Amino acid sequence: MSATVLYMSMSLDGFIAGPNQGPGNGLGDAGHRLHDWILGGAPTEHSGVPGRPSGANGTMMDELMATGAVVAGRGTFEPAGGWEGDHHDGVPIFILSRRPEAEEAQWPLMTYVSDVEEAMAAAKEAAGEKEVLVHGAGTAQLALAAGVLDELQIHLVPVLLGEGRRLFEHLGADHIELEPTRIVEGAGVTHLRYRVLS
Amino acid sequence: MSATVLYMSMSLDGFIAGPNQGPGNGLGDAGHRLHDWILGGAPTEHSGVPGRPSGANGTMMDELMATGAVVAGRGTFEPAGGWEGDHHDGVPIFILSRRPEAEEAQWPLMTYVSDVEEAMAAAKEAAGEKEVLVHGAGTAQLALAAGVLDELQIHLVPVLLGEGRRLFEHLGADHIELEPTRIVEGAGVTHLRYRVLS
Repeated sequence: MSATVLYMSMSLDGFIAGPNQGPGNGLGDAGHRLHDWILGGAPTEHSGVPGRPSGANGTMMDELMATGAVVAGRGTFEPAGGWEGDHHDGVPIFILSRRPEAEEAQWPLMTYVSDVEEAMAAAKEAAGEKEVLVHGAGTAQLALAAGVLDELQIHLVPVLLGEGRRLFEHLGADHIELEPTRIVEGAGVTHLRYRVLS
Repeated sequence: MSATVLYMSMSLDGFIAGPNQGPGNGLGDAGHRLHDWILGGAPTEHSGVPGRPSGANGTMMDELMATGAVVAGRGTFEPAGGWEGDHHDGVPIFILSRRPEAEEAQWPLMTYVSDVEEAMAAAKEAAGEKEVLVHGAGTAQLALAAGVLDELQIHLVPVLLGEGRRLFEHLGADHIELEPTRIVEGAGVTHLRYRVLS
């Protein structure tokens, strides 16, 4: 059975982007710091693009890239240029949007969905036995509130950003209990995995 | 040489107390959840007070109780009833306060200090070779901003509190880099230790 898993890099003070996040500045000012652990791989010989990071960080990236569907919000999707229509390996992508009709079928792999529960259900169906990659703070908050986020994979980066966009906000005062299921130390990052219990 | 070490239990979403924190409600509404890992020890035979927790959590408590001085703010000190004048083992306690004169010498072990740098320097001097236990969000923020906090010992609790008082706020947009020095998995908590680099 598929599970919906939030993959996010977060600073110890809870930020997933620096300040002034927006189009053309998707990670906010100096927010690229949060992705240093991913870019730690040596540049590939021909392209100059960073290769797969080594060690535990590479394993984490492999897991992320083995997911069978993607759910993200417009705030993640748009600054990323829609991943040029393909996040990885041609898996289906579900974009949460309050005005889906106008944008439907802009990219062949993408489906615009206005309801988070519907998006998660469709993504699980599409992913089959594989996990669903969930991305973005807004999507995470909606999914947690609706009880449709199964797991968290937090890449905890050893820095205090000080300002920016927080991953966890607007959740209300009811506690959401988590069960730690795996802790992996990578180079320049700690990978914390949790099951969402309630 | 002594080091100033912030010891704080924090939820994954960054809170060190629930909402409505104040006198008589030091951990805020339902904030006691953050201390469950400490209270996991079995009640001692006679007192009914929880004993030292077992395993890694007990080791963490031992480290905390081996510190040679305490620095805390009034927001920590007052809800705790001033620890009845003795936090542990009679070590000197330095309380950050903007109006120190009126309160000086209320308790024999306590010194009221208005400046965080002065408080940390005095505590290090008093602690000798031992660490200085730093406690409280306000004190942490002042000490980080002044560059006088050497290490962080975060007891990361697997829960999203949703609302309450955050540990890291008002730090400004300059990044503070950290170096992870130790990760210990305890029962119901993950102990993350960092050196503050810049």
